Amino acid sequence: MYQIDPAFLRTSHAVGDLALSHVRLHDDARYPWLVLIPRVTAARELEDLSRTDLATLTDEILLVGRAVRTLGTPVDKLNVGALGNVTPQLHVHVVGRRQGDPAWPGPVWGHSDAEPYSDAALLKALTRAAATLGL
Amino acid sequence: MYQIDPAFLRTSHAVGDLALSHVRLHDDARYPWLVLIPRVTAARELEDLSRTDLATLTDEILLVGRAVRTLGTPVDKLNVGALGNVTPQLHVHVVGRRQGDPAWPGPVWGHSDAEPYSDAALLKALTRAAATLGL
Repeated sequence: MYQIDPAFLRTSHAVGDLALSHVRLHDDARYPWLVLIPRVTAARELEDLSRTDLATLTDEILLVGRAVRTLGTPVDKLNVGALGNVTPQLHVHVVGRRQGDPAWPGPVWGHSDAEPYSDAALLKALTRAAATLGL
Repeated sequence: MYQIDPAFLRTSHAVGDLALSHVRLHDDARYPWLVLIPRVTAARELEDLSRTDLATLTDEILLVGRAVRTLGTPVDKLNVGALGNVTPQLHVHVVGRRQGDPAWPGPVWGHSDAEPYSDAALLKALTRAAATLGL
């Protein structure tokens, strides 16, 4: 049965469920950053998904990219990554990057400690993300 | 007209062309690492591709993942990333990661200077990659 790795619960907040993926807001106010976790038992790599699920995931990555763009100041580049070296459960990061952001132009993963959202900013970000995702 | 950013020519070697993407071997012998560059003029983000091209790219990412697995010792985790903060032309990295590799468990991008292949190892890697890709 599908179960979310507890590591995600410590570093992110639930936005809601799309057709395939559970979507979470990564708790770092410095970057507009959402994470998709396909609800597929034991999936670790993209190749573990069926062709149908892969097509759905692709659609959801684009949709989540649009949501990331609504979370703050204009994004210069989206960064999309499926890594999983630390938490192997299949998940895809979609991060809005801006020239001059703390990790620019390097990757955000492993760069520096997150700066959690304030309660008010968190509520605003979750609300905006959910609205764009139709949740 | 489609033209490859010269930055790729300095850091990688051509493997060949799939239906959509030009495939290159990143010149760092420490990691089995291929890069897909969709031959689509002015594409920077995944959302710049048509739905048909996105589906083809997804298939090609899986195929390239299989090729990465043939390049060396067994891979513990594939890392798939579309970043483009430095070179914005749309491209997708597929990197085979192993526990204890130089950047593990962090991302390879921006970690440390590449260690170029020797001529013999380069030829072997290009040949193996092309064979798996059917090129």
